[in-house]
Amino acid sequence: MDMQSGEMLGFAAGIITTLALLPQALKIMATRQTRDISLLWAVSMNVGIILWLCYGLAKNDLPMITANSVSFLLLFIILLFKVRYR
Amino acid sequence: MDMQSGEMLGFAAGIITTLALLPQALKIMATRQTRDISLLWAVSMNVGIILWLCYGLAKNDLPMITANSVSFLLLFIILLFKVRYR
Repeated sequence: MDMQSGEMLGFAAGIITTLALLPQALKIMATRQTRDISLLWAVSMNVGIILWLCYGLAKNDLPMITANSVSFLLLFIILLFKVRYR
Repeated sequence: MDMQSGEMLGFAAGIITTLALLPQALKIMATRQTRDISLLWAVSMNVGIILWLCYGLAKNDLPMITANSVSFLLLFIILLFKVRYR
């Protein structure tokens, strides 16, 4: 696989997994109900995504850097709502 | 950053984001309650993680390949429960 189609695959993956968080964030912002969301999931994802971002920076991998930056913002919102509205 | 510490960062990221899914999967398996889980999140994550796995395979990136393989299994279980117990 050449570099360009590899990059496109990475950007497609990043766009989908990042956008995936949007309906979840919007859902709990609208309902303020987070009972079925695992706190441990929310905390671990925030920590893990920061590490994936660092890994992307270390490898200078643009799809990983962009996707994980935006994902972190959404995951942080989800975590805030989970802590605020248990 | 040398290759070895880069790889270790990737594995740390992969272990944390993969393990993050475990309490979420166990929570909904125990409660059979998935109301606050977004179906769109679950579907998108399954699709997106498969693409990240393909990207990892294309780049021959071992942390991405291992993490996304196990994450996919857990996300698939979460999706099955979301569809079965709305």
